[in-house]
Amino acid sequence: MRVLGVDPGLTRCGLGVVDGRPGRAGMVALGVIRTPSDAEPGERLVYLESQLEHWIERFRPERVAIERVFADVNVASVMTTAHASAIAILVATKAGLPIGFHTPTEVKAAVTGSGRAGKAQVGAMVQRILGLDDPPRPADAADALALAVCHAWRGAAADRLQGLAEQTGRRLAAQR
Amino acid sequence: MRVLGVDPGLTRCGLGVVDGRPGRAGMVALGVIRTPSDAEPGERLVYLESQLEHWIERFRPERVAIERVFADVNVASVMTTAHASAIAILVATKAGLPIGFHTPTEVKAAVTGSGRAGKAQVGAMVQRILGLDDPPRPADAADALALAVCHAWRGAAADRLQGLAEQTGRRLAAQR
Repeated sequence: MRVLGVDPGLTRCGLGVVDGRPGRAGMVALGVIRTPSDAEPGERLVYLESQLEHWIERFRPERVAIERVFADVNVASVMTTAHASAIAILVATKAGLPIGFHTPTEVKAAVTGSGRAGKAQVGAMVQRILGLDDPPRPADAADALALAVCHAWRGAAADRLQGLAEQTGRRLAAQR
Repeated sequence: MRVLGVDPGLTRCGLGVVDGRPGRAGMVALGVIRTPSDAEPGERLVYLESQLEHWIERFRPERVAIERVFADVNVASVMTTAHASAIAILVATKAGLPIGFHTPTEVKAAVTGSGRAGKAQVGAMVQRILGLDDPPRPADAADALALAVCHAWRGAAADRLQGLAEQTGRRLAAQR
């Protein structure tokens, strides 16, 4: 399953594309979309939209994973983060891609086994999982990769459960 | 000056179009875009985008006024409000329209003279300013109308100041 991970932000929006199946994952692409903080808010959103469209067109992910933003994390930056998140949701939906939302805690737990792991630990685990020579940089892109890995693994598990449930349902229906 | 006011929201997004010049204003249109809260977040944003595009195409405003959302007002709804706001900013920018942001306090002060005016007082003043038979309903649409009136008046005043400053600048330059 190919997943585009998006760590939403307006000044810096981290992107990571991963091909993954439970327990394994390979990196496809890594990047950061930057917009200048003194630009018009609208121009920043339009640019972010065009870049996200470009990434989806170029790397053809099957799913998009977006970090779930909480309102109480950082009042100063939360609004621009929410704006960037909305653009990512819009672009993914218009491309017909299913979206998964994951909290930072879920992502950390998925890649390190602990929801309280630090940045460095997440980076080191992402490096090991993806078989990279160095920890992925910059940090926003590393977070986006971790998000994509988390979604590929959890998504696949969820799909398998869904498949099992449907199979069981069909079997029960056949027995009736 | 024709202004589209947007009171951003995902469950209910208030819209009001006003033709205004300082001290005077006439209503052109009034409405609310609703999306079901149990729909996919992406589908809600795509629908909101299409409706906003439709309003701009139909009523051809020269400017868009959007309520400035604060992160600390209501943690539960602030994220969806911020998402709706991002879509409004995106659509207006792509339509080439200048955007003005106004806080609720600014809007109340512009239409009632007091930044602490209540809903009913704002509604009554909007009714009087626009010469309506009844207070505008629903409340979201009334807020959007007040926002558009505020922007038409303040925007015109700002333009006039800008014009005066440029005139003065040219006069000073000519005297040198």
